[in-house]
Amino acid sequence: MLEVPSPLEPLVSRIGEQLARLSAGRTPTLFEGRWWSHQALNLAMQDGQFKTQLFRFIDVLPSITDDEQVVMLAREYLGEGATPLFGTHWGLKALSATSLGARLSGKAIRSQVEHMARTFIAGATVEEAAPRLTELWHHGRAWSVDLLGEATISDREADRYRDRCVEALTRLAQEVAHWSTVPLFERNHLGPIPRVQLSIKISALSPHLDPIDPEGSYRSVASRLRPILDLAMRLPASLIFDMEQADTKTLLVEIFTRLFSEPSYKDYPYAGLALQAYHRETARDIEELLTWVRRRGAPMTIRLVKGAYWDSDTIRYRQRNWPVPLFEQKALTDANYEVLASLLLAQSSLIRPAFGTHNLRTLAYIEAVAESLKLSPETWEYQMIFGMAEPFQHAVTQYGRRLRLYTPVGDLLPGMAYLVRRLLENTSNESFLRKEYVESQALTTLLAPPVLAGVSQRQPSLSQPASAQEFHNEPQRDFAQVDSRTAMQQAIATVRSQLGRQWTSSSRGLRLTGPLIESHNPGRPDEVVGRLSSASSGDVDQAVRRAVQAWESWHDTPTEQRVNILRAAASLMRTRRDELAAWEVMECGKPWREADADLAEAIDFLEYYAASWRNLASPKRLGQEPGELNQRFYSPRGVTAVIAPWNFPLAIPTGMVSAALVTGNPVIFKPSERSPMMGHWLTEILHEASVPEGIINCLQGGPDIGRALVRHPDIATIAFTGSKDVGLSILKDAGTLMPGQQMVKRVLAEMGGKNAIVVDETADLDDAITGVVSSFTGYAGQKCSACSRTIVHAAIYENFLDRLKEAVLSLKIGNPEEPGTQIGPVIDRRAQAKIQEYIEIGKKEARLLVEGTVAEPGWYIVPTVFADVASTHRIAQEEIFGPLLSVMKATSFQDALTLANSTAYALTGGVYSRSPANLELARQRFDVGNLYLNRPITGALVGRQPFGGHRLSGVGAKAGGEEYLTQFVVTRVVSEQTLRRGFAPPE
Amino acid sequence: MLEVPSPLEPLVSRIGEQLARLSAGRTPTLFEGRWWSHQALNLAMQDGQFKTQLFRFIDVLPSITDDEQVVMLAREYLGEGATPLFGTHWGLKALSATSLGARLSGKAIRSQVEHMARTFIAGATVEEAAPRLTELWHHGRAWSVDLLGEATISDREADRYRDRCVEALTRLAQEVAHWSTVPLFERNHLGPIPRVQLSIKISALSPHLDPIDPEGSYRSVASRLRPILDLAMRLPASLIFDMEQADTKTLLVEIFTRLFSEPSYKDYPYAGLALQAYHRETARDIEELLTWVRRRGAPMTIRLVKGAYWDSDTIRYRQRNWPVPLFEQKALTDANYEVLASLLLAQSSLIRPAFGTHNLRTLAYIEAVAESLKLSPETWEYQMIFGMAEPFQHAVTQYGRRLRLYTPVGDLLPGMAYLVRRLLENTSNESFLRKEYVESQALTTLLAPPVLAGVSQRQPSLSQPASAQEFHNEPQRDFAQVDSRTAMQQAIATVRSQLGRQWTSSSRGLRLTGPLIESHNPGRPDEVVGRLSSASSGDVDQAVRRAVQAWESWHDTPTEQRVNILRAAASLMRTRRDELAAWEVMECGKPWREADADLAEAIDFLEYYAASWRNLASPKRLGQEPGELNQRFYSPRGVTAVIAPWNFPLAIPTGMVSAALVTGNPVIFKPSERSPMMGHWLTEILHEASVPEGIINCLQGGPDIGRALVRHPDIATIAFTGSKDVGLSILKDAGTLMPGQQMVKRVLAEMGGKNAIVVDETADLDDAITGVVSSFTGYAGQKCSACSRTIVHAAIYENFLDRLKEAVLSLKIGNPEEPGTQIGPVIDRRAQAKIQEYIEIGKKEARLLVEGTVAEPGWYIVPTVFADVASTHRIAQEEIFGPLLSVMKATSFQDALTLANSTAYALTGGVYSRSPANLELARQRFDVGNLYLNRPITGALVGRQPFGGHRLSGVGAKAGGEEYLTQFVVTRVVSEQTLRRGFAPPE
Repeated sequence: MLEVPSPLEPLVSRIGEQLARLSAGRTPTLFEGRWWSHQALNLAMQDGQFKTQLFRFIDVLPSITDDEQVVMLAREYLGEGATPLFGTHWGLKALSATSLGARLSGKAIRSQVEHMARTFIAGATVEEAAPRLTELWHHGRAWSVDLLGEATISDREADRYRDRCVEALTRLAQEVAHWSTVPLFERNHLGPIPRVQLSIKISALSPHLDPIDPEGSYRSVASRLRPILDLAMRLPASLIFDMEQADTKTLLVEIFTRLFSEPSYKDYPYAGLALQAYHRETARDIEELLTWVRRRGAPMTIRLVKGAYWDSDTIRYRQRNWPVPLFEQKALTDANYEVLASLLLAQSSLIRPAFGTHNLRTLAYIEAVAESLKLSPETWEYQMIFGMAEPFQHAVTQYGRRLRLYTPVGDLLPGMAYLVRRLLENTSNESFLRKEYVESQALTTLLAPPVLAGVSQRQPSLSQPASAQEFHNEPQRDFAQVDSRTAMQQAIATVRSQLGRQWTSSSRGLRLTGPLIESHNPGRPDEVVGRLSSASSGDVDQAVRRAVQAWESWHDTPTEQRVNILRAAASLMRTRRDELAAWEVMECGKPWREADADLAEAIDFLEYYAASWRNLASPKRLGQEPGELNQRFYSPRGVTAVIAPWNFPLAIPTGMVSAALVTGNPVIFKPSERSPMMGHWLTEILHEASVPEGIINCLQGGPDIGRALVRHPDIATIAFTGSKDVGLSILKDAGTLMPGQQMVKRVLAEMGGKNAIVVDETADLDDAITGVVSSFTGYAGQKCSACSRTIVHAAIYENFLDRLKEAVLSLKIGNPEEPGTQIGPVIDRRAQAKIQEYIEIGKKEARLLVEGTVAEPGWYIVPTVFADVASTHRIAQEEIFGPLLSVMKATSFQDALTLANSTAYALTGGVYSRSPANLELARQRFDVGNLYLNRPITGALVGRQPFGGHRLSGVGAKAGGEEYLTQFVVTRVVSEQTLRRGFAPPE
Repeated sequence: MLEVPSPLEPLVSRIGEQLARLSAGRTPTLFEGRWWSHQALNLAMQDGQFKTQLFRFIDVLPSITDDEQVVMLAREYLGEGATPLFGTHWGLKALSATSLGARLSGKAIRSQVEHMARTFIAGATVEEAAPRLTELWHHGRAWSVDLLGEATISDREADRYRDRCVEALTRLAQEVAHWSTVPLFERNHLGPIPRVQLSIKISALSPHLDPIDPEGSYRSVASRLRPILDLAMRLPASLIFDMEQADTKTLLVEIFTRLFSEPSYKDYPYAGLALQAYHRETARDIEELLTWVRRRGAPMTIRLVKGAYWDSDTIRYRQRNWPVPLFEQKALTDANYEVLASLLLAQSSLIRPAFGTHNLRTLAYIEAVAESLKLSPETWEYQMIFGMAEPFQHAVTQYGRRLRLYTPVGDLLPGMAYLVRRLLENTSNESFLRKEYVESQALTTLLAPPVLAGVSQRQPSLSQPASAQEFHNEPQRDFAQVDSRTAMQQAIATVRSQLGRQWTSSSRGLRLTGPLIESHNPGRPDEVVGRLSSASSGDVDQAVRRAVQAWESWHDTPTEQRVNILRAAASLMRTRRDELAAWEVMECGKPWREADADLAEAIDFLEYYAASWRNLASPKRLGQEPGELNQRFYSPRGVTAVIAPWNFPLAIPTGMVSAALVTGNPVIFKPSERSPMMGHWLTEILHEASVPEGIINCLQGGPDIGRALVRHPDIATIAFTGSKDVGLSILKDAGTLMPGQQMVKRVLAEMGGKNAIVVDETADLDDAITGVVSSFTGYAGQKCSACSRTIVHAAIYENFLDRLKEAVLSLKIGNPEEPGTQIGPVIDRRAQAKIQEYIEIGKKEARLLVEGTVAEPGWYIVPTVFADVASTHRIAQEEIFGPLLSVMKATSFQDALTLANSTAYALTGGVYSRSPANLELARQRFDVGNLYLNRPITGALVGRQPFGGHRLSGVGAKAGGEEYLTQFVVTRVVSEQTLRRGFAPPE
């Protein structure tokens, strides 16, 4: 971090004082009493919980058309106590239980908030905004129009945004044509400046913007950008790419440089890109852009902002255990801004610097640098936000500087989201506006350079307390990193080169008498992935006897040693991570991220159960009475049969096997006959990690092996994950005492699901639809957690279906070896046939909404959606295990929950809602093992979302939870009378 | 507490200094270097753990005849690090792995310790002791002989102690006949004093000394005391009753006054009783004795001691949650001693005061009081312990006072126990000897009055940290209290008056169509205890449907309310405690203590599950990642069938039912048809405690009701306690999915046991035999935890059998309504017939050791023991559920564990051993759910010894343990994405 050069400080202070004088006597609209009670805002700034509730209410408000519901939600969020606070302004004071009172008040609230929105949004359309844009121009403010709108979740929506951009440019060009000239706005040191500037949100131009697939993303975005750009060149107009979340930063820079390097566009001088001072890589990005500009020959605009996604980016990276790429301290960002501003000013012969800031210190600093570089004032411009920080807008224009206002145009409803972000920024403790206008800090404090001394790299508010179990989830691969993508490509090539080989059985010392089994690539069924010898049911007894013999020494192996073996296996998986993921892509048809997530989860199970067992294994004292010592011990139950599925072919068996092993049991492991290679690799890794012979025994094969295991008298525990029918038959078989059996068998069975997502009328539909789509199509719906029913409130039903259909039609289906593939094939021909059968059933029972076909060879099923499904329909009751969704209409939230609970399954469920009352009701009444609120319903993480269901979805403790391991042990309580000869040991 | 009268203090100091001068220059044997390294003793005094190990080694040493084993045990207790410390003295330094080395060293150790024992024991027999007693007399010390010996656990042993007393008196009288006269020893102010004094341990005179039955205890003790007393009167000799544990104090005082009020003995003037200054009631006891002496007319001796059972009494009372009747602070005891001493001296016209003390301050205080009362020195005497505190012995004799030494006579082996207690007393922090001779405290400090200021009533070393769950076991009744006995007698009379009544069904609102069932008194089979209407299997569906309907509101009842209902039920049980226990005596044939314990346990279950659920019920956050809130919730599984046994007819169903209720489930409760009245009362109490209708449904009846419940599709959970065969058939039935079933059934089954106690060659046989006897005969062996096998090391096998046989033959069998009854009838004719059948089988398979018959009507089975049982015998494999014990011989501890583990059951087990290595091996390898070390194997306490087994003994978490409740719930994890519009609530 460069230190601020102190020689500049006197100059900064002098200019700062000058600007402050120029801004004096004015108050930002935000802090004026006219639309917002000072009391409410003060309360929000003092009480973080209240602020959250208030802003969340403002966020949901636009979705609600019913007045009574507006009042109801106001109460849910703000409680009765808030009524007097907002009553006068919003009419809540007049509230009564009568529907008349409610209607009136709802209307009042809405109109107040709409009024508020108009402060920040120039108009619902360009037409509506035009008079205000003209007014701005004539009051000495240029502008950059930003077209607000919902998130783009389909190609149709991307097309619509493209069209809106084209229309806006056309319309704006007409509008500005007859304006009078303002020289400062129309030319700078690098030439003329178009009057029209459009800020573009690149993510709105494609539903496929995904850093895992830069090529596909580029193609999708560029194809929609070109018509806009062609028009901008003609007019001319300036186009600025907004910068968004950190995970697309590299991709956006790449799209920018690639597009503007294309022959048609390489001379266009009005392209611009926003860059964020909070991003650690921005200095490097600027250096690379400068090199690119030099090579390209035409200038570009760089808009330097502090960055507006700090909270969400920081949270999302931390959630994933990825290093946060942003500065985590506001002062570091401020300091970096100053460094970057100096850099941009120094390089202004190549670029047009634009400084987005509302901070007096920053403004003064930029002026001081420019003055020291002796730059002409036309060289750079300031950008501020429409409706914000008016005193500074006034000051910089009075100071003779070019100012451009970032001006949102669009419907008030989606605009509310924008508004909330603005309110947040300006009421945060770090906000300059708050410091100056609310806290009235001294000018010398406000103008002091950012304080870097003693700065911690983590903000305390988001710090993670050390977990009791010292467990952290293994991060999934960040495929925004080019190294990650390259490694995966190489791993796929390596595995490709080994396809078709026959592998030596990993069941050392066991003589297997079953046939050779072949594993096929579901995407290319002719391709043999690997060949392995399998067991016959006659081999089971041999394996169990071997396990029984080996048990004693494993039982007596010290806890620490068994724990370390799991950790060693985790290390081996980390080492072979890409290779194993590539095997999974080949054998199971998983797209990259899904395959990688399975690896991460397998590692998680190993680390979590290792950590968990270290905690559990030590004896626990019960009671504190003198003269006696009561201790709880855990002892292994005995030989454990693990019967595993193919859909998480590494993670699920790793979890079941490692839980049994670490607690001291020998294991007979039967991988699915659909994913034998992954079972083979798991066994090999465990052997390599020093699990002794006889303790892990892999028996490849089909249902007959499973059945023989379940019935064997020496099996003490059966850990099964698979279908309901198989699970129930295991439960039945295991309940019958076999001759010679010495232990009641325990069955842990994770069975199926018929999981529903409820979407109510308050839901954020952008989130809800993407969540439903990813939950029902992820790994082609072949997850027990997958969504297969969506229950939608009648008020939004048609809109939901409409957007859902387009989103589904926009999915990329194809070969999972390709990084951009979202949906691969299903596991095999049998699965494909079964799902197709259900599609036919669905066509008879309900209304087909989306269907499709794939040209590729392989067992593909295009995601299929049925609407108007009734709860009695088979497609609403039976587990299909494919990308098939049944949409049902509900008349109320309670009705939706009743529908959701109307199957014999209880595995996962989801709710998209912004009604606190509905979320609470779901917590109480949505009868599933794992309930997800406002997020997709798959992807449970070990430790954080222990996974498992009840009813006919399963029996046993949740996998990846603290109670899981105790299922593999018996509890022994040892009570010693410690009193001897009248005395007990000292305590 | 009276304050010490300060005017006396100058006198105390003066006399104390005088006595100190008289004792100067001498060191107590204990602290001399000659037999004990100063270093070892210092270490023991500094390190409590080491002291424990050292004294435990000394305690076990006498039992070991094998030299190698002595060395092995020395290593187990003291470790290799201790070798150099004791090597020189005990020969451990010469230790090697050769057996020659080991033998030599073992011998050396033993001979050192035997030498040590001779310091405290005058001789193995009176003959052997005679020369030392003579020597004492001629050196100015009188004596009181104490005959050492093992604890009395049979009538034969009681007879032997009586005979030893008679012989000792005879032999001592012969010995003293020709001694020269010492006037101070032979007469005091109340007349002549016999030369011979015998201290008698009353508990050694009967195996039936039990405060629950004062009359029976008196008869048993008095019959053996009379021959001794007759002889003492003839000789004459003085007889002093030693005082023992606090629970027999009242009984011993009563026996003393009653015996010496008998016409033949009322004039005997040489009777005496020891009283303990640490007992809070001693002042009152003295007052009452003085009244009695006045009435009787003849004097008595009162020997005032501080008391030697403080540790064990304090621990045992605290373990039982009874108020500790002793002062819990040493200073309070010291102060009380001075008060009592003053009282005795003041009343010396009626009694002969004898002061047992080794404390210089106390000696000086007594002298000062006597001087202030102007008493002649012949009035009182001092008593000190043979081999202890020789400097003070010297001082008081030099001071011209009568001193009597309490002089143990007996084998060195049992004498070791005595020795350990002495060592303990004198190395404790509170010991005067330690203060003077080890710590060399200043004389003024040593002579200061006991410091009472700021004294806490609890010693910190034994303080109980507040339990996380705020749970304390309900105390069982202390039947040493006359009020408790009276209340129980009255309750039995009350219940008697209600026998034969027909009771209205407690299943309100259910129409039961089964026949009327009758409950019979097993001790008087003609007696109908009560009549109740029962259910037919057709009634089951009605009850389940009612429960399903009632579920929702119970499910939604706040946690706190359900918790309070359990607590209310506990209160009701406390109120009706004696009455309910009396019903149990009548219906189940339980002796008083067993019936009362069932009540206490039922209350414990209610309180424990209430406390436990309060802890568990609140949602628990998982993970700490920002932007997401993952919480674990528990929800009730659904209708729970509770199928209960008759042997703990209140506690076991209370546990199962209350666990299901508090977690939010409705219950169908089928009590055993053998204890319908107790099931009726439980249901009534739950209704009274506000469990709503439909939530607790009692279906009286037999196996057909149970079967119908298990198979009902709407039953979610089955909690069963009973036989293995029924349990296994429930597991099988529950594993089969029934039409309409929506939930995989969970079965919690507590089944049988074939529990073994292992007794190794290091065991304390007094403890082992009483433990085995109580474990196999308690409630006539009708506990699943009962001992039915005892595996004894070959080295002690015959001795064990010999003492065991006598102990069993001494048991009191009979009507459980009588307080002294140890063994009542078995539950019914069917049970009796089955057990008799096993007795016949046993006679064919093994050697019959004990058998017997009972004259009473009723279903009695006399405790029966077989020896030389092999593990293949049916009586070694099958659960008999009656007072039948199979004794097996083991060649080693490892062999014993193998035998113990050789059944399909794994419920309880026990080990009696003083080998740390063996105890550790048992912890690791004794495969049972509840293992007990050096204590009986029944009587698990809720919270402290959660109860339950595995293998074919049961499935499910332990009852009364923290994991139990989670079996009645499903776990739901709710994961909310809390990030909205880019920000999450503050944490």
